[in-house]
Amino acid sequence: MIALQSYVGGQWVAGTGTPVPLHDPATEAVLGEVRPAGVDFGAALRHAREVGGPALRALTFPQRAEKLKLLSALLHEHRDALIEIAGRNGGNTRGDAKFDLDGASGTLAFYAGLGKALPDGNLLPDGDGVQLGRTPRFWGQHVYTPRPGVALHINAFNFPAWGMGEKIACALLAGVPVIEKAGTPSAMLAHRIAQLVVDSGILPEGAFQFVAGSASGLLDLLGPMDAVAFTGSSRTGALIRGNPNLVARNVRVNIEADSINPAVLGPDVESGGDTFEQFLANVAVDMTQKAGQKCTAVRRILVPQAMVGEVQEALVERLRAVKVGNPLDDSVRMGPVASRDQLRDVRAGIDQLAAVADVVLGGKQPIAEKGYFVAATLLRARDAEAAVLHELEVFGPCATIVPYDGSAARAVGLCNRGGGGLVASVYSDDRAFVEAVVQGIAPWHGRVWLGSEKTHGQALGPGAVLPASIHGGPGRAGGGEELGGLRGLHPYLQRTAVQGDRAVVAKAFGLDGSTA
Amino acid sequence: MIALQSYVGGQWVAGTGTPVPLHDPATEAVLGEVRPAGVDFGAALRHAREVGGPALRALTFPQRAEKLKLLSALLHEHRDALIEIAGRNGGNTRGDAKFDLDGASGTLAFYAGLGKALPDGNLLPDGDGVQLGRTPRFWGQHVYTPRPGVALHINAFNFPAWGMGEKIACALLAGVPVIEKAGTPSAMLAHRIAQLVVDSGILPEGAFQFVAGSASGLLDLLGPMDAVAFTGSSRTGALIRGNPNLVARNVRVNIEADSINPAVLGPDVESGGDTFEQFLANVAVDMTQKAGQKCTAVRRILVPQAMVGEVQEALVERLRAVKVGNPLDDSVRMGPVASRDQLRDVRAGIDQLAAVADVVLGGKQPIAEKGYFVAATLLRARDAEAAVLHELEVFGPCATIVPYDGSAARAVGLCNRGGGGLVASVYSDDRAFVEAVVQGIAPWHGRVWLGSEKTHGQALGPGAVLPASIHGGPGRAGGGEELGGLRGLHPYLQRTAVQGDRAVVAKAFGLDGSTA
Repeated sequence: MIALQSYVGGQWVAGTGTPVPLHDPATEAVLGEVRPAGVDFGAALRHAREVGGPALRALTFPQRAEKLKLLSALLHEHRDALIEIAGRNGGNTRGDAKFDLDGASGTLAFYAGLGKALPDGNLLPDGDGVQLGRTPRFWGQHVYTPRPGVALHINAFNFPAWGMGEKIACALLAGVPVIEKAGTPSAMLAHRIAQLVVDSGILPEGAFQFVAGSASGLLDLLGPMDAVAFTGSSRTGALIRGNPNLVARNVRVNIEADSINPAVLGPDVESGGDTFEQFLANVAVDMTQKAGQKCTAVRRILVPQAMVGEVQEALVERLRAVKVGNPLDDSVRMGPVASRDQLRDVRAGIDQLAAVADVVLGGKQPIAEKGYFVAATLLRARDAEAAVLHELEVFGPCATIVPYDGSAARAVGLCNRGGGGLVASVYSDDRAFVEAVVQGIAPWHGRVWLGSEKTHGQALGPGAVLPASIHGGPGRAGGGEELGGLRGLHPYLQRTAVQGDRAVVAKAFGLDGSTA
Repeated sequence: MIALQSYVGGQWVAGTGTPVPLHDPATEAVLGEVRPAGVDFGAALRHAREVGGPALRALTFPQRAEKLKLLSALLHEHRDALIEIAGRNGGNTRGDAKFDLDGASGTLAFYAGLGKALPDGNLLPDGDGVQLGRTPRFWGQHVYTPRPGVALHINAFNFPAWGMGEKIACALLAGVPVIEKAGTPSAMLAHRIAQLVVDSGILPEGAFQFVAGSASGLLDLLGPMDAVAFTGSSRTGALIRGNPNLVARNVRVNIEADSINPAVLGPDVESGGDTFEQFLANVAVDMTQKAGQKCTAVRRILVPQAMVGEVQEALVERLRAVKVGNPLDDSVRMGPVASRDQLRDVRAGIDQLAAVADVVLGGKQPIAEKGYFVAATLLRARDAEAAVLHELEVFGPCATIVPYDGSAARAVGLCNRGGGGLVASVYSDDRAFVEAVVQGIAPWHGRVWLGSEKTHGQALGPGAVLPASIHGGPGRAGGGEELGGLRGLHPYLQRTAVQGDRAVVAKAFGLDGSTA
């Protein structure tokens, strides 16, 4: 039984207020607790702004990149112990835990590599210089500089390591100190990582602070140079975006929220072929990995009417082979969902889907006496138009086959009914079909993943968030953008147009050189 | 006496509700009226989404650029008639009116030129492709595509032509239909331009709609593919950003609001030299052009203590030479402010400044029996730290000399007290001073303008918004970004990461080629 503490102002601080128990979701045993209050947010922000920020910005981009490399190695070094915590407090199988932890260390390593090649100093030219006057004497150059603020990261429970890792990689490389708020149900893993980061002394003091408990009071204290990045539900996202202080002071808000991710099977795909196998494998992995608790997991499986029978049969076969149980058992392939609240929400969601779709495998009924287990649940829509299919994210091992007529136009229409998503996948070897679908769905999706014979066995599935590609999506998905190489630093940098004498502007602020 | 109408749903519609009179601010004569209601916003949005958007996107980037070129020529063709309207309803001198109108046609021409070089079709690659897997087979490419939504532009009263022109240039080139809401006091010019645009038939029907009156009800109807761009006060900006519908649906909001723009005179600058003359000329122009009603106009004049006397003397001399009066008189160099409300606000603002600063020229007292005239007003701060100097935008011919010790650090500190600004100008030929100030103020400013001997007579002043450089700023200035070349299209485009087989992704979506 551990009482999680927050690391703020240079020390570990015990929480106050009514304790929230932390469970092993497989056994319901209480493993620890978090208390919601007890953190002096004003002092934490001052510490970040006055101690952590200046120390980070006393380093250059490449020097901060070196810190990320060390953080990546730190996670790798402690991987086995962290996997165990993810198994106990997160309901993660060994594979789930590795996905989360290696995602974190991989993303940190990616940004370490990217940062190594950035200019010395704290100034990043944006694009080429441009002549502004009638003669080249009057010259313009856009630059990015680190904002002297704080990055508040409100992380989701499903990826305690990766979620935090990707957010700190971008902010720290940009030169902005972070305050990490952990998702409560799985906070033990985030807490242990925070301990490792603090104990390692890799980062300058004040660059990294950690909050176990609520961070909502923090929002009221943020200022114009600060940024909030939130991963979680649309409902909480709207509360954050609408926070009166954030609105009044134009604080940057980056939200990654609900997404009813579609997978489109093209009409050209033949059963038994590589593209078909890739489609089945990816859908089955998305549904069961992390018990379906991935913001990028497929929720709507668009299948040409003529192929619905064989797709359903093949998916049921794959899903039936997934052994569900306590993730500490090595033969288990899917653990429970993360908390009692999640269990309740997933069951309620399956009920709502079942009103418009047939349950062809699994369902909401309990499958164990103890633990927050949900069966892998496949549904088939009776009415492809039913709103709930396109608007309700059931955050568990659950997806729905949505039959369509095999046309690109219809596939586009159904995909876009999601109202904005993180990722759509398209499986087809017909280029005309693929191009038509991509053109139609791109405006509504932050990422489009294309499956085909050529990438079978060569590509990570659409559920994986790669640091070189942006992660986020419009509308329901929150309207945010993270990662995407250097793009991921932009929320923490200010872009400024510098105008003046070409000799000064190009030399001091352009691609030719860099100050400081 | 003209009753302004709105152009929505393919026709001109009369307003309803209590009329708001439109004045000649020099004589207070009533010239026309606007009625706040009477527009069916739902129908206007449907018209834009179902008629205008598809028609625009049936064109390619270069084809839409061609439309902008025609719009630019249209404004130029009617320049004299439009100057007269700006003189009567806007209080603009001929020079003020040309600044506004040529800004509009120049920006349209700039984007016409930019768009000509864009790929055919509706897909804009963003950066280079990147290898995503262990082999180059799995490939990623970011692309921008037009969002199938509507751009609602809520324009300010001070630049009825330029403000509308820059916003429509970016949205239309991006492929997004616009609804233009005019700033009420000067709506006659915007209305006449709207008539010209509609009558010209240059744009496809539904691509351009115009609202005279209130547009606030429109906010409640926007969706995830729409965008709002607002130029105006911080207070109204916060109402827009906090609108519950916009928050709930993650509608994009781009705000350009208050800015207490600083000009920093470097300690190395000697009176009588080119840099000093450039500084004086720019400050005097900013204070009097458009009667100081420019969001980019200097409000805080940071002068090294030792030079305060001579700067004050030289500025007073220049400002005294500016003849104030009815702008239809060709010898007049400064007209009235735009409305009775503005007059009231500017007088109240001068009062607030006068509590912490000495009025050395002008003041709030009336200078004519009729009309909304304010004298060019120069103050000198008694206490450089006084909050009101750094937080109150007095939107008229008014600025305050703020003495400082001549150090870069102190200049940076005072500039940044503005809490986020659109543009800061720095006048110095000492590169170390310039670089130190730029590094310090860049995170708080969207644009930094450098004056020096070399640019004297070669550069447009800091008050001019150039389409090649971004316009906007953090914090108090709204946190938005417009213009900046292609960057100005981004609010209207969705960025999507496309991942898949390199042969497909690079060819169809990369820099090598383009679909459609």
